[in-house]
Amino acid sequence: MVGSRARSNKVLDMDRKVEKRLKEKIILKNDLVKEMIAELIGTFVMVVLGCGSIAQAVLSRGILGQIITINAGFSAAVALGVYVSGGVSGGHINPAVSFTMCFFGRMKWFKLPFYVAAQFLGAFLGAAALFGAYHDALMNFAGGELITYGENATAHIFATYPVSYLSVPNAFGEQVLSSMFLLLIVFAIFDDKNWRVPKGLEPFAIFMLILVLTCALGMNGAAMNPARDLGPRLFTALAGWGLEVFRAGNNFWWIPVLGPVVGGVLGGFIYIYGIEIHHANPNPGQRLQKLEEKHEISVIIFYPEETD
Amino acid sequence: MVGSRARSNKVLDMDRKVEKRLKEKIILKNDLVKEMIAELIGTFVMVVLGCGSIAQAVLSRGILGQIITINAGFSAAVALGVYVSGGVSGGHINPAVSFTMCFFGRMKWFKLPFYVAAQFLGAFLGAAALFGAYHDALMNFAGGELITYGENATAHIFATYPVSYLSVPNAFGEQVLSSMFLLLIVFAIFDDKNWRVPKGLEPFAIFMLILVLTCALGMNGAAMNPARDLGPRLFTALAGWGLEVFRAGNNFWWIPVLGPVVGGVLGGFIYIYGIEIHHANPNPGQRLQKLEEKHEISVIIFYPEETD
Amino acid sequence: MVGSRARSNKVLDMDRKVEKRLKEKIILKNDLVKEMIAELIGTFVMVVLGCGSIAQAVLSRGILGQIITINAGFSAAVALGVYVSGGVSGGHINPAVSFTMCFFGRMKWFKLPFYVAAQFLGAFLGAAALFGAYHDALMNFAGGELITYGENATAHIFATYPVSYLSVPNAFGEQVLSSMFLLLIVFAIFDDKNWRVPKGLEPFAIFMLILVLTCALGMNGAAMNPARDLGPRLFTALAGWGLEVFRAGNNFWWIPVLGPVVGGVLGGFIYIYGIEIHHANPNPGQRLQKLEEKHEISVIIFYPEETD
Amino acid sequence: MVGSRARSNKVLDMDRKVEKRLKEKIILKNDLVKEMIAELIGTFVMVVLGCGSIAQAVLSRGILGQIITINAGFSAAVALGVYVSGGVSGGHINPAVSFTMCFFGRMKWFKLPFYVAAQFLGAFLGAAALFGAYHDALMNFAGGELITYGENATAHIFATYPVSYLSVPNAFGEQVLSSMFLLLIVFAIFDDKNWRVPKGLEPFAIFMLILVLTCALGMNGAAMNPARDLGPRLFTALAGWGLEVFRAGNNFWWIPVLGPVVGGVLGGFIYIYGIEIHHANPNPGQRLQKLEEKHEISVIIFYPEETD
Repeated sequence: MVGSRARSNKVLDMDRKVEKRLKEKIILKNDLVKEMIAELIGTFVMVVLGCGSIAQAVLSRGILGQIITINAGFSAAVALGVYVSGGVSGGHINPAVSFTMCFFGRMKWFKLPFYVAAQFLGAFLGAAALFGAYHDALMNFAGGELITYGENATAHIFATYPVSYLSVPNAFGEQVLSSMFLLLIVFAIFDDKNWRVPKGLEPFAIFMLILVLTCALGMNGAAMNPARDLGPRLFTALAGWGLEVFRAGNNFWWIPVLGPVVGGVLGGFIYIYGIEIHHANPNPGQRLQKLEEKHEISVIIFYPEETD
Repeated sequence: MVGSRARSNKVLDMDRKVEKRLKEKIILKNDLVKEMIAELIGTFVMVVLGCGSIAQAVLSRGILGQIITINAGFSAAVALGVYVSGGVSGGHINPAVSFTMCFFGRMKWFKLPFYVAAQFLGAFLGAAALFGAYHDALMNFAGGELITYGENATAHIFATYPVSYLSVPNAFGEQVLSSMFLLLIVFAIFDDKNWRVPKGLEPFAIFMLILVLTCALGMNGAAMNPARDLGPRLFTALAGWGLEVFRAGNNFWWIPVLGPVVGGVLGGFIYIYGIEIHHANPNPGQRLQKLEEKHEISVIIFYPEETD
Repeated sequence: MVGSRARSNKVLDMDRKVEKRLKEKIILKNDLVKEMIAELIGTFVMVVLGCGSIAQAVLSRGILGQIITINAGFSAAVALGVYVSGGVSGGHINPAVSFTMCFFGRMKWFKLPFYVAAQFLGAFLGAAALFGAYHDALMNFAGGELITYGENATAHIFATYPVSYLSVPNAFGEQVLSSMFLLLIVFAIFDDKNWRVPKGLEPFAIFMLILVLTCALGMNGAAMNPARDLGPRLFTALAGWGLEVFRAGNNFWWIPVLGPVVGGVLGGFIYIYGIEIHHANPNPGQRLQKLEEKHEISVIIFYPEETD
Repeated sequence: MVGSRARSNKVLDMDRKVEKRLKEKIILKNDLVKEMIAELIGTFVMVVLGCGSIAQAVLSRGILGQIITINAGFSAAVALGVYVSGGVSGGHINPAVSFTMCFFGRMKWFKLPFYVAAQFLGAFLGAAALFGAYHDALMNFAGGELITYGENATAHIFATYPVSYLSVPNAFGEQVLSSMFLLLIVFAIFDDKNWRVPKGLEPFAIFMLILVLTCALGMNGAAMNPARDLGPRLFTALAGWGLEVFRAGNNFWWIPVLGPVVGGVLGGFIYIYGIEIHHANPNPGQRLQKLEEKHEISVIIFYPEETD
């Protein structure tokens, strides 16, 4: 048995030396590129598995999916997206998170467009992969039509749409409020001086967070993420649903794009000025300095090469 | 790329030195005020997200929410409320918890009214924020009316109401029993000498605890928290549901206020005298002293300034 | 503020010195009594909250409870019962677990009757407390009648009953199989040399375990615990359902009593002889000795006084 | 009490010395046999409890099981299967996982057929045990018939079947995609340099992973595991459902066998070349060497005897 190993290895195993040399060549030297790839893959994972949970419920007409599988599924998709990307890029997978991090000095501004671009691309590709995985089901669902409104609608698998009676101010306020909680609680989860979740388990708290946000403020889709909403919406516009996806719900599309950014910054403000800066410390100056350092440490994942 | 950073920073980034000086000025020196803010934000989080889970189920008429999303949502809301406030104030977010802590010497009595006031204010503001987030849905639900009874009722989104056949003694007994389990098990979760949950993960055990309490003793709303119930009830009375919210269910309103306090103390008694004081220890005197010290340590979060 | 503390303390606070002296007097010196109290409270917690989850689903006729709230609720009830009692008694809260522990030398036999008695008493008292908490609902449900069979049955809130077509061998085999998995996996969870759950988090794995057992082998109630089934069944016989609760389902009552004991031992055998004894170790003799020591360590919670 | 211990021990307790000698004799010296037993038991656990969750939902016609209990149940079954086998064999319990591990040099190829054989045998035996546990229910369900199609079908309890409109390319693509995510995220969860789950808690992340995969890409059964699908399918063919189980769905049977292997390797590629090889390290050579060592360490569970 052990004797035949060498031969069977030759048939299927990658040549380790070749592999090593190949790896050495393609290893990325630029941290920002690494981070972009991580954000792209993380957002891709989140959109395929998160929107996939909606797809299964919609396309099985509620038999193989209900609100609990959608919400638990999307929460797990976000948590796993963070596991996939977190150690490299911080696991934002959400432009509103990246913007808030920059706003409060936890990430450098020049990185923002790169992060956001990677997130949008990941979400767009995720929508495309999901469209492929559910191709036959989508075609079968409404006799080959891809519909935005009504009982046979499938557009809401990919992007969020409001209930019919919702006014623009209420829609915007709801996105601000839910994203405010998202960032407020993310800041709490990662605050060393609060009831901090042990290292490596933060995604489980994020699972609870997305679960409750989709259960409590999910009447209109609970996007809370410009990339997760606009990326797949753009895909549906191109893939056959048409520009209706942008006009629907009083041109609702910009609300899950702008709302989360406003809400995220608001949530950061409430947490930082309500809780974080007041943590007990014998020497306030030192505490502030430590805060700075903590930023550097938490931020070291993002830009260890820029030590100026 | 790296070169353009400085300029882009100037446009959007907060000036770090100004920020530092601002922070130094507004940092709270009084621990009690910090704790009140933490309790306020924590209770606010719990009420918006917890009652929000009920709102989504009620206002979507069961399509976007059922008993499992309500119970899982409220449990996550409590757990996250503890993550937000725990490191500063102990994360009570419930007057019955604060009262029980005082009763068994784990918090000083003079703090109780401040904690309770912050909790009620947080719950009241939470109800108001939720009312805002669901304004259009509430208006649409019953043709603009805000109703306490029947199929189109919305008052039970905010406060708890009993089933029609429930007698006052049964209602009171149920609140005592559920709150007894709440505190009994909270004491167990935080008892160092029992099967203690690792530091930082207690809120996950609290998630399980609220989940089972709402699944098992939730027939009449499972308030188990005077602030969570009376705060939003008061808000609904003012916001348009009227005084009916106090008269409903045989003046049910006082039961989720008094019951949890009685039940909490009862649960503490059962745990402390049934389990805690008997923990094996070579030197009973030392053990008791250690218990005292442990109180101080666990309590140091509450009043580190009072070392007399 | 701080000044008024002394006075307010006098009004409500327990006199610390009196409390200390009281505690010193009632502290239990006998470990077995401590363990019995822990098992009693743990089983009480499990039955009230576990069977309570069934009660809420049955008595609300599925509106405030479904199979998912029952199964998640019962799983949380077991996990929390372990948190309440685990550090003192090992958290068996199940005679089949205690028997299996004795059978494989992980607990001394003389303790078994005491553990079992405490577990049965806890389950019986739990059923009584649940009956009280749901008194009005039980009376209202079937016009004041307490029924064992049919649409208005309530007996299955407390004890398990089989589906009508189930034969005795299939019923017995199912209880053996589910209890076999219960113990097999409990042994795996606590095996230091396997993929051990970190200390203090085992109840979360037990949550998953009970969840899947009730979801997968719960067609006939998934008792897997003589105390949880026979204790409440006895209570219902006395409380008004009558001896029908023992005759029902071809005298089903003995199956969830004997089946779990047989299944538990079988599960222990499979795990110990399939996995545990083969763990790699440079010195087999030392390994066995270490195993012995491990037993002593894990067992030290049960009988630290017996060091002969 | 303590006095009577010796006698009661003699009646029921195993003679410790005999037990010790027995154990010394049967302890396995061959690590591969240990690993095969672990994989067999782990896959057995997964199939009985996972497919059991489907059985309970199907055979109770949705009353005691729905999509959420099936998906949560199967996820817990996988997680617990890993806890049972992980410390010995790595807890693959899936030929696609074992193949991918070999493909990327994390397991030696000669072990693959042994792992796969144990996994298939465990799945086959699990299907048989489940058939026994639900014997009366299966007989009762369709008047004694064992049916593959339609409302009274029971074959899909054991193996997966596609929806009627699904084309072969879509079916294959879906299995590739879901298994790609399975392995991609498993690699992320165990990657020391990413947001690694703390040791011993990986199965909880795997629970989330299976949950979302079955919620999002579970329209056609979400097998993602050749052993879990083909093993029970073979059992049903022999147990009375007949060869129809292989012909059903355009000879669907080979898709959950081949698809997961292709998808698994694809997921490994994406993770390793997108994330893993780029991890920051001052000395790339050393980093690669470290990677190698890490493999040895993570792989030491698989073949500690082969240190050449």
